Amino acid sequence: MSIIALATDFGEGQYVGQMKGVILSRAPSARIVDLFHSVSAQSILEGAFLLSRSWKYFPEKTIFVSVVDPGVGSARRILAVSAHRRTFLAPDNGLLSFLPPSSIDEIRLVENRSLFLPEVSNTFHGRDIFAPVAAALSRSLPPARLGRRIGILKRIADFFPRRAGNVWKGVVVHIDRFGNAVTNIPAGPRRVRLRVGRKYFGTNVRAYFVAPPRRPVVIQGSFDTWEIAIQNGDAARRLGLRVGLPVSAEAVP
Amino acid sequence: MSIIALATDFGEGQYVGQMKGVILSRAPSARIVDLFHSVSAQSILEGAFLLSRSWKYFPEKTIFVSVVDPGVGSARRILAVSAHRRTFLAPDNGLLSFLPPSSIDEIRLVENRSLFLPEVSNTFHGRDIFAPVAAALSRSLPPARLGRRIGILKRIADFFPRRAGNVWKGVVVHIDRFGNAVTNIPAGPRRVRLRVGRKYFGTNVRAYFVAPPRRPVVIQGSFDTWEIAIQNGDAARRLGLRVGLPVSAEAVP
Amino acid sequence: MSIIALATDFGEGQYVGQMKGVILSRAPSARIVDLFHSVSAQSILEGAFLLSRSWKYFPEKTIFVSVVDPGVGSARRILAVSAHRRTFLAPDNGLLSFLPPSSIDEIRLVENRSLFLPEVSNTFHGRDIFAPVAAALSRSLPPARLGRRIGILKRIADFFPRRAGNVWKGVVVHIDRFGNAVTNIPAGPRRVRLRVGRKYFGTNVRAYFVAPPRRPVVIQGSFDTWEIAIQNGDAARRLGLRVGLPVSAEAVP
Repeated sequence: MSIIALATDFGEGQYVGQMKGVILSRAPSARIVDLFHSVSAQSILEGAFLLSRSWKYFPEKTIFVSVVDPGVGSARRILAVSAHRRTFLAPDNGLLSFLPPSSIDEIRLVENRSLFLPEVSNTFHGRDIFAPVAAALSRSLPPARLGRRIGILKRIADFFPRRAGNVWKGVVVHIDRFGNAVTNIPAGPRRVRLRVGRKYFGTNVRAYFVAPPRRPVVIQGSFDTWEIAIQNGDAARRLGLRVGLPVSAEAVP
Repeated sequence: MSIIALATDFGEGQYVGQMKGVILSRAPSARIVDLFHSVSAQSILEGAFLLSRSWKYFPEKTIFVSVVDPGVGSARRILAVSAHRRTFLAPDNGLLSFLPPSSIDEIRLVENRSLFLPEVSNTFHGRDIFAPVAAALSRSLPPARLGRRIGILKRIADFFPRRAGNVWKGVVVHIDRFGNAVTNIPAGPRRVRLRVGRKYFGTNVRAYFVAPPRRPVVIQGSFDTWEIAIQNGDAARRLGLRVGLPVSAEAVP
Repeated sequence: MSIIALATDFGEGQYVGQMKGVILSRAPSARIVDLFHSVSAQSILEGAFLLSRSWKYFPEKTIFVSVVDPGVGSARRILAVSAHRRTFLAPDNGLLSFLPPSSIDEIRLVENRSLFLPEVSNTFHGRDIFAPVAAALSRSLPPARLGRRIGILKRIADFFPRRAGNVWKGVVVHIDRFGNAVTNIPAGPRRVRLRVGRKYFGTNVRAYFVAPPRRPVVIQGSFDTWEIAIQNGDAARRLGLRVGLPVSAEAVP
């Protein structure tokens, strides 16, 4: 029995609870794990980033049920993607931007209505489609039963940081519980100066505890990207940082 | 082994954690699922609504541990109700208003102190009474061992929307994570105009994605009741909506 | 297979999700329970208090993974402590202050890097060290394999309320979901007057429901310490109470 990992922007509460009820009704011994539900409402960018940095910590065969879905009820497609020896269920809206074509074994449309709940709402496919389909997959339903095979999935440009000479350009992709502002710019051993709007951040530290008090610092965070942090403080609140803000990083000597 | 679904207003945290510890101490292989813990503090109305719309997604034999309990420590009774092939544990304060008499097979008082923790606090019966009793039921304790059988449970008037001619009168019963204001007025195919205080909402849409930008709309939500929503926005915050506000709905041509 | 109980200040979200992924990758049948993740960011005092009052509700052999860790990435040590027939993993920063020397069977340093993830970040040892070590312990790794045995762990003075004659001196250690301000001063049958800053609270009640409306009261809470509460209200917000504030309690006739 595979693990089913739930990754949504629903917040903790009855929406996730109902999804779990549906899964357990159809796959009583399913192993359900909450990956995250705290993504900023409707933020495909943030959901894609967190998923991209989390899937590898889960065992092979895990089924990721990824629902950040502002287009719910529209004609947007739902996908089941086999990649990295795992399965990713998601609306085709860019949430799986992080899967390069070379990593993908197969993309299936999720269109076999006999797998869905008998009544499908226009507002909550997480419960009515994703949950029962995940339950079926966890019980070894062959992906070919889900629907037609297709060749390509949607990717969003913002997800990918860009390099121009010495400068990386990216965005803030996540504010964590401590107020650290996480970017999507890959971190490494070299010192950098970050720019967000008109503000510059140039104090590089290797861990939170060595940061000078009350001073914003740049750190290689646990996602292996650059973060802006304040030791024992809330950097995002103090500096007005939020998901989606453009960031640039320049190597310094 | 039955599923034990927890539905409380405790928020995520150590109160729920302690309940899980007690359950696992007494029923080591219990299957525990969080249904919700984010109900507005002390809101019996909201808890009853969310429970009423969620139980059917869980398998038969599920034990719902429902604790929204402002009267904890008083003489209010605790009930174990068999209905819909499931068991509902709750204080007798209206939280089970949604169970019509015809659906109920049996109501038992929970009064057998030998099932409780040895010391019962006056402030946290979720841990000291509900959790050990749920553990015992999940291990097939016959309900007759809980206490006397009684005939009737408390219902709260607010829970039930009322129809007067063409007009339904109800209340806001839930603000969800996205700021959608959920009412308890049953939705259907006809267009309606909602009134909340002096504000009217008449733009009916069938899904969030078709709503005009920044404009409040009326939608049939996933609870099958009318909701007020703003696409990619927080309707409740922008319009000052909150749980308990009276709402009326009138069919329009 | 032991229970693994997670107790952190990470909030719900991907940090805890990644820890669960790591645990399940290495101990596929581990039983994982969330004890709490909502501790005030970096509050060792609050984490220690909540843990001290929660462990006894969990079965023997439970492994508590306790991560409130402002010194992550520093030379602070990580401990595995056997006490009360349970195992406590924690940074050596005072989070285990509640374990008296007499309760401790063994303290081991967690220093065997072969048990960690192959790459250890400087910012997230919960995922890179604590999770894989907990997984190994749950699969019966002998604690001697973790590292050297040591004799003593760090305790923080604030954790311990002090008695001077008739007066107890302590601190606010937790604000719960309802806004109740929980102190670390042991409660008992005698009436007390609490002082916080220049405010006095002398109305003792035995349960929330008997409190006069809108009036702060003193109550023996479910942690068996004194709490300040307002019936159906948010005492902490209304009175400006927060974790760390000094409190004194004096018995009254």
